[in-house]
Amino acid sequence: MSTPRPKKYGESFSEWFSWIISEAEIYDYGRYPVKGMGVWLSYGFQIRRRVIELIRLLLDESGHEEILLPLLIPEILFAKESEHVRGFEGEVFWVTKAGLEELDMKLALRPTSETAISYMESLWIKSYKQLPKKYYQIVSIFRYETKMTKPMVRVREVTTFKEAHTVHEGFESSEEQIKEAVDIYGKFFDSLGIPYIVSRRPQWDKFAGAIYTIAFDTIFPDGKAVQIGTVHNLGQTFTKVFDVKIQKKDESIDYAWQTSYGISERAIASIIAFHSDEKGLILPPIIAPYQVVVIPIYQENTKDVVIRYSSDIAKILHENGIRVHLDLRDDMRPAEKFYEWELKGAPLRIEIGMRECSNNVVTVFRRDILKKETIPLQQLVERIRIMLSEIMQNLIDRAWKEFTSSIKLSQNIDEAVNIVRELGGFVLMPWCGDERCIYNRLQGFEGIDVIGEVMDVSLKRLNIDLDLLREAKCSFCGKNAKAVVALAKKY
Amino acid sequence: MSTPRPKKYGESFSEWFSWIISEAEIYDYGRYPVKGMGVWLSYGFQIRRRVIELIRLLLDESGHEEILLPLLIPEILFAKESEHVRGFEGEVFWVTKAGLEELDMKLALRPTSETAISYMESLWIKSYKQLPKKYYQIVSIFRYETKMTKPMVRVREVTTFKEAHTVHEGFESSEEQIKEAVDIYGKFFDSLGIPYIVSRRPQWDKFAGAIYTIAFDTIFPDGKAVQIGTVHNLGQTFTKVFDVKIQKKDESIDYAWQTSYGISERAIASIIAFHSDEKGLILPPIIAPYQVVVIPIYQENTKDVVIRYSSDIAKILHENGIRVHLDLRDDMRPAEKFYEWELKGAPLRIEIGMRECSNNVVTVFRRDILKKETIPLQQLVERIRIMLSEIMQNLIDRAWKEFTSSIKLSQNIDEAVNIVRELGGFVLMPWCGDERCIYNRLQGFEGIDVIGEVMDVSLKRLNIDLDLLREAKCSFCGKNAKAVVALAKKY
Repeated sequence: MSTPRPKKYGESFSEWFSWIISEAEIYDYGRYPVKGMGVWLSYGFQIRRRVIELIRLLLDESGHEEILLPLLIPEILFAKESEHVRGFEGEVFWVTKAGLEELDMKLALRPTSETAISYMESLWIKSYKQLPKKYYQIVSIFRYETKMTKPMVRVREVTTFKEAHTVHEGFESSEEQIKEAVDIYGKFFDSLGIPYIVSRRPQWDKFAGAIYTIAFDTIFPDGKAVQIGTVHNLGQTFTKVFDVKIQKKDESIDYAWQTSYGISERAIASIIAFHSDEKGLILPPIIAPYQVVVIPIYQENTKDVVIRYSSDIAKILHENGIRVHLDLRDDMRPAEKFYEWELKGAPLRIEIGMRECSNNVVTVFRRDILKKETIPLQQLVERIRIMLSEIMQNLIDRAWKEFTSSIKLSQNIDEAVNIVRELGGFVLMPWCGDERCIYNRLQGFEGIDVIGEVMDVSLKRLNIDLDLLREAKCSFCGKNAKAVVALAKKY
Repeated sequence: MSTPRPKKYGESFSEWFSWIISEAEIYDYGRYPVKGMGVWLSYGFQIRRRVIELIRLLLDESGHEEILLPLLIPEILFAKESEHVRGFEGEVFWVTKAGLEELDMKLALRPTSETAISYMESLWIKSYKQLPKKYYQIVSIFRYETKMTKPMVRVREVTTFKEAHTVHEGFESSEEQIKEAVDIYGKFFDSLGIPYIVSRRPQWDKFAGAIYTIAFDTIFPDGKAVQIGTVHNLGQTFTKVFDVKIQKKDESIDYAWQTSYGISERAIASIIAFHSDEKGLILPPIIAPYQVVVIPIYQENTKDVVIRYSSDIAKILHENGIRVHLDLRDDMRPAEKFYEWELKGAPLRIEIGMRECSNNVVTVFRRDILKKETIPLQQLVERIRIMLSEIMQNLIDRAWKEFTSSIKLSQNIDEAVNIVRELGGFVLMPWCGDERCIYNRLQGFEGIDVIGEVMDVSLKRLNIDLDLLREAKCSFCGKNAKAVVALAKKY
């Protein structure tokens, strides 16, 4: 509890993060002349494309339908639900002019799409027979952030917002959907090796218009909590206002129920934050633009042989569905290429010189453990596949290990506050379950945020003894504890 | 030259188009409360996704890098190139407010991204060694159209704008790029069976800021020309204004050269316009969400057997990489399913009843020729693959036949104007090549647009005898003809 987090990224994680996304050609940030808006560069875009494909697959196979709603939401729609508009009005970009004209009604750049889709659902959905219905879209959203902006983490154009919107006959079905959404996001983050806690946000921190919000949070190397996914039960808030009425199975007419849930490019920021070391990135093979980079090493007199052998290797890997890049740039020394691909996080590097050609082997360098291995050509594809899967597992294990090491238990407020302030990470505390109790006691502790009630699925995963905790007393009021609350410093 | 186009879509193509995109659940248009902005529905989105994958493949394999620029362009960037801003200022949406504040500088919703990317290129590109450089992005663009809006064809949010932007050391390299772009777009439209003419736009109709513009145009069933792709040589227009300077091979410093080229969801509108009949859509197998729909036909006592056999068929096709959907809805009669999938354009329908189960065969219905065929189970995958490829070829042949039948030759202005007005389509005319000549002579003929100088690649494809035409006289001034110009009525 007393060792500070290792400063493997130098003194400032934030500076390191800005440096790596630029050096690895992922995201050009801070130079485009609109604050909080960056450019996805080619290498970063390919990572992003594969991350998007992962979530698409999970959504498609669970019956979600991808659609695309307009970016612009007229004020009359956007302002229809009062709690929602109050929650968002401080951060909406407004279009007020078009061509040389002043518009009759201003148009919001979507900060989220509950209002737009609820309006359409009132046209689309008529009967319980159509339900449950699950829509999603992957779009840019816009929020006029007034806090300090940070690349990928707090931006004004969130370019990779996957928002799902579902419709249900009753509350029970919407609760089932919440479970499915939590399950899907869990699988998504697991497949990327991004560790997380699932918690129920306190009422004062829920989505504007929701009954309640469940959130996925992780911890960045600077010790701060980052919200990486949210799941909302919207109840009938929007269906009542937008008149989304359905005929139910019992033939009565009632407003439908809704949920919505979203993730963003913070998933990509998390990949970078967790899967990296002092040499740069270590990309999970599942989303690496190149899983293997082949680098030929030759003299003038061995060039032809080495390049031919290298091309053959690349061809074999490509034909076996492995994403491979043959780096033939001849204005760079091999060492410079090694440096670049280590920085950019290619999971495997194959080095090929005359020795390899003569012996029908390849030398493979594992980016995660920085170790070399010689593979006979006959075992090439099989070994590469195994190594890629070992790297993936190693990245997952490492990330969860790092993550759990930043989670502490405490039953004492002063100690908890101290841990959050000094070490960062999450502090988990037994709690009576009354939000007012914790709200009152934490007033005045600046920079300490209530993440929420940690859900069983996370307590189990973190190996926390539920029974023990439930025999404990609330850390805030001393009554019997009924739950576990997580505190942290939020971004 | 005297038969009017068949009215296979009823009296009005426009009405039919609106009907089919709604009935086939492609695009919900005219109900979202912002003019000119529609919603891509699930089925339409899947078509769109596959069309995007086609162009991506062509761009990626020719060395284009996908990136993503911000949506918002500050006025100071957007207005920097005077010709460009004059060309677009009438149709730009402007963000002027954010939260409760008035912005210091208004922000344009990108109508196109030459200014944004040129600014970034001034930071990215330093040397001829980096060139040629080819970027692209697939994004929404916004244009405040003042003409009558039309779903997918003239909208205010173009949701599927693929814009490419390239940088070159010199003019020659940019001209090579123009050829490559024309080649890529040709392949793209060919793969979808969308016929086109390639022409060079007259100077008064080029892209604002370009040296010249080459365009792809097709003809819709109402006889009007639709621009479906454009390719611009931008020269040094933007690089001079944005100071994109490079060190050239000869060590001198000069402004770089640029091209840009774009296509949009008009490609999808064209698929719908060409590949359809009185029963609805006939989707090209290459982009059909389901290439095969399997429909079981049973009585209560044969249900289990028929469904089991149908599932097996679907499974076999799926395992062989064919996109198949097993339609198990039990609140619909088979005839209703037939109707729906014919309307939605599934290329093949497999009908399975007890007869098929007993004989180990399937009955396959070809959507394009409306004919049935019985296939033994052993030949299932092979025959389905052949049929899909036959359908694709048939759709291509039909579309080009229909297209070429709407192209006429004339050397007489009155006749040409009459054809365009009465029959629609393109009229091709020998021409001296002087734009002023044609501009002056066509003044006063309302509704007749000069498409441009038809390029050789199109003259050859349309089997037009170049030598013959070049011996002809200019249809407008009587001097020796040097080229062929196309006239039409434009959307």
